[in-house]
Amino acid sequence: MADVRPHTSTDQHTITTGPIRGSRKVYHDTDEGLRTPARRIDLANGEHLDVYDTSGPYTHDPATVDVHRGLEPLRQGWATEHPTQLAAAKAGAVTKEMRFIAAREGVRPEFVRDEVAIGRAVICANRKHPEIEPMIIGKNFLVKVNANIGNSAVTSSVEEEVEKMVWAARWGADTIMDLSTGKRIHETRERILRNSPVPIGTVPIYQALEKVDGSPEKLTWEIYRDTVVEQCEQGVDYMTVHAGVLLRYVPLTAQRVTGIVSRGGSIMAAWCLAHHRESFLYEHFSELCEILRSYDVTFSLGDGLRPGSIADANDRAQFAELETLGELTRIAKSHDVQVMIEGPGHVPMHKIAENVRLEEELCEEAPFYTLGPLATDIAPGYDHITSAIGAATIAQAGTAMLCYVTPKEHLGLPNRDDVKAGVIAYKIAAHSADLAKEHPRAQEWDDALSKARFEFRWQDQFHLALDPDTALAYHDETLPAEPAKTAHFCSMCGPKFCSMKITQDVRRYAEEHGLTSVEAIEAGMREKSEEFADSGNSVYLPVVD
Amino acid sequence: MADVRPHTSTDQHTITTGPIRGSRKVYHDTDEGLRTPARRIDLANGEHLDVYDTSGPYTHDPATVDVHRGLEPLRQGWATEHPTQLAAAKAGAVTKEMRFIAAREGVRPEFVRDEVAIGRAVICANRKHPEIEPMIIGKNFLVKVNANIGNSAVTSSVEEEVEKMVWAARWGADTIMDLSTGKRIHETRERILRNSPVPIGTVPIYQALEKVDGSPEKLTWEIYRDTVVEQCEQGVDYMTVHAGVLLRYVPLTAQRVTGIVSRGGSIMAAWCLAHHRESFLYEHFSELCEILRSYDVTFSLGDGLRPGSIADANDRAQFAELETLGELTRIAKSHDVQVMIEGPGHVPMHKIAENVRLEEELCEEAPFYTLGPLATDIAPGYDHITSAIGAATIAQAGTAMLCYVTPKEHLGLPNRDDVKAGVIAYKIAAHSADLAKEHPRAQEWDDALSKARFEFRWQDQFHLALDPDTALAYHDETLPAEPAKTAHFCSMCGPKFCSMKITQDVRRYAEEHGLTSVEAIEAGMREKSEEFADSGNSVYLPVVD
Repeated sequence: MADVRPHTSTDQHTITTGPIRGSRKVYHDTDEGLRTPARRIDLANGEHLDVYDTSGPYTHDPATVDVHRGLEPLRQGWATEHPTQLAAAKAGAVTKEMRFIAAREGVRPEFVRDEVAIGRAVICANRKHPEIEPMIIGKNFLVKVNANIGNSAVTSSVEEEVEKMVWAARWGADTIMDLSTGKRIHETRERILRNSPVPIGTVPIYQALEKVDGSPEKLTWEIYRDTVVEQCEQGVDYMTVHAGVLLRYVPLTAQRVTGIVSRGGSIMAAWCLAHHRESFLYEHFSELCEILRSYDVTFSLGDGLRPGSIADANDRAQFAELETLGELTRIAKSHDVQVMIEGPGHVPMHKIAENVRLEEELCEEAPFYTLGPLATDIAPGYDHITSAIGAATIAQAGTAMLCYVTPKEHLGLPNRDDVKAGVIAYKIAAHSADLAKEHPRAQEWDDALSKARFEFRWQDQFHLALDPDTALAYHDETLPAEPAKTAHFCSMCGPKFCSMKITQDVRRYAEEHGLTSVEAIEAGMREKSEEFADSGNSVYLPVVD
Repeated sequence: MADVRPHTSTDQHTITTGPIRGSRKVYHDTDEGLRTPARRIDLANGEHLDVYDTSGPYTHDPATVDVHRGLEPLRQGWATEHPTQLAAAKAGAVTKEMRFIAAREGVRPEFVRDEVAIGRAVICANRKHPEIEPMIIGKNFLVKVNANIGNSAVTSSVEEEVEKMVWAARWGADTIMDLSTGKRIHETRERILRNSPVPIGTVPIYQALEKVDGSPEKLTWEIYRDTVVEQCEQGVDYMTVHAGVLLRYVPLTAQRVTGIVSRGGSIMAAWCLAHHRESFLYEHFSELCEILRSYDVTFSLGDGLRPGSIADANDRAQFAELETLGELTRIAKSHDVQVMIEGPGHVPMHKIAENVRLEEELCEEAPFYTLGPLATDIAPGYDHITSAIGAATIAQAGTAMLCYVTPKEHLGLPNRDDVKAGVIAYKIAAHSADLAKEHPRAQEWDDALSKARFEFRWQDQFHLALDPDTALAYHDETLPAEPAKTAHFCSMCGPKFCSMKITQDVRRYAEEHGLTSVEAIEAGMREKSEEFADSGNSVYLPVVD
């Protein structure tokens, strides 16, 4: 059995490092000389399971990271003659990023290329962000999870945000959005970018608004453009652009219960109304494409008019904007710029599938990237759960990446614990969808854990859990003693009522008597039954405290 | 605004009493002189919302409960000449229980009767359990939630279990199953029954097994029968009976990853194999029907061969047993005994609908009562979430009652906090399904909360939450000061980026200028836009700590 190593340690900047409990970092070498990361869980029975790993060098043992210096630039020198991954794919070229991704996902590089070429998958990888381990977002790959971090005017510091990024990636976040809106936006983003093993997304209009003292009507195309260039230069991998909020759509939100709930959407609506002009994002969209193209930054076309309540789901405003996003998708792709489409929000379960259907129809199957959705409004404090239900449902229907929601949603800025709760809930939603879509690699994880459970390999159960620390802590609340880690029961049912124990006794009996196939068991059952009754096998262990 | 009263207080037995924060108990009088309970949430805008209430007299203000005396016998003297609710319904009679339920659910009494008559709904109400407030379980009513409690050989006391019952009902559990397997089973159950406002279910084989010192092969029909009679006499409202685990089905579990995971199922499998005889539950089923009929106890036909892992979902063993449950359903109904059918377990999302379809086909739409199911196996410590995803999905498809799963599932016996976490997660799943099924009363709750959110009525938001205490606590973590309760923002985005605030400013402007319809806004927008720019309205509040 693998040793249980110290699972967290902190340097002077309180960055969490060290392996996840019971796991260790391994790298797989590809034929092309690339090394892709995995989290290896060594099991007590001599087997091991390698699972997809997003945590970067922070989970090395020991981890030697210096947040002032930043991560090693893995992708240095990978550039091709093609301006973007999309251009390369269209030209039939397989980039190093595609090979890296193919190895990570267990598919052929050509499959990655083809999905990128038709715009059904995107590789968010700014040329100026060489530190990341390339990953892919698309319905035919593992469902991905994004975690939002970022300070606000009210709370939080740069150091806290870097740690939230490392922490979120540790627990499985595939990308991070830095939504900082307070002071030191540029510096916070710089520190996050230089230290992130996963792609970073932003919403440039937040910083642009800070530059005009928070008054939407003072925004201009020039201020916005300069902000985008500034962020592209830093290495941001994808940007949310609310270019689909058109002037004529604003009145469609008038009768809504919760109006416009997207921050970027409400800012653009206020700008359009104040100037009575069409959105500068829409009017300058081709210019924006040229900027993003030159860095290979991916568009995340924002759903500024997404529903913010069950009452507003799937309304005219929402779907009118989606139609415009479809138009913008075609423009971006004609510039060889990669695109994904953001989606809701708050949607009751029976209206979720329609969102995916329409998005795929209107936006040429560009990867759908949804915020939840929350399946009900009535549980503030538990919106990681209300939205995990919606997220699993919409991912099963084809959403490629899920933006997490934390328990603090609607109530306050998430702290470190909330970030973890949100990431874990969303890894559950994403994996549930991977199972439902019958992703070839998904079920081996479930099978390994269930096998460990049935065989009472408790440590393996903990180590195979999405969150080994919590699984262990819950078990130890009632049975902390070391022998309980090998006991054939837990405190839930106690030894007498452990169904798995009884089943094992029944099965062991069958095996000892050569009744290993269903047919043999059926045939031999009658004559063997008395033997079993007389076998004297103790079915139960004595009660242990 | 309603005063925020002290929301919990404890008597010497540490029973939680007093109203839920921001709510008060009200009763609605029916034309027939019945009084049905509701939880009233008084709102700051003068409106109020009444929601379905399961908490019993414990949420009176002040609550005068005496756990030694028990609750008032509400149903004393309600008996009819019909042996069971099903017999009454078949005869066209509308019982007082049906009238009570109709008022609670907002439907006609005749609709309740008709659903019971065809066996699509059940009223779990033992004649010897007069303390309960009648409720109904059926796909055409609100989705219900069951909470399991009960001590095990390893841990927990009688007092703790009574408090867990009160606590679970407080947060919305519609029924409670007492699954005690340790000492003092009879006494624990007695105390729970006499104090419970909700129906109580049990699994009699657990107590029967205690009577034979935990050896399944020593069980007899007579010991089991006497245990059932003992529990019927006490007032148990529904009983899980694993009569579908037939001898010939046991070998079907031989190749499973997790074998038999139902405790009752594994006990009966061991018995059948040891004696090489058909299950005594199956062979004596008609006799059992006659016992349950004389008390109007409802069958919950157990799924002893339910899958315990993703790998085992929807296999031959599971569906073979379901077929037998269909046969038993018809027998029970011919005896005028009410029936519901238990379901899995662990099922990936794409295999969930098939479970409901087959259950309805094989069991004549008898109410389906499922344990989750968990949509993945990989997150021990978070199985309230893995299973809330499956529960919402299966309830949307037609499951009538959801048996909760707590975060401790697979790891240990749930404590009070785990019970609450499980109940809240399942109220979320059930309500999400009610919305998806377009239950006429479901969405008014979401709308009330979202309206409060949009209008920055923070206290109303907290009080309308499924768990007001947690919503308030999360908000106050970052903005504890009293003025924040009326502020037009929270710490998540801060004042500058509050989309709802911006939307309100835009909308107020439109209203002040008579642009209250979409058409008027569209027509008048151009000429009014300059006015808006010049109006000098401050769009943002100053930053507040």
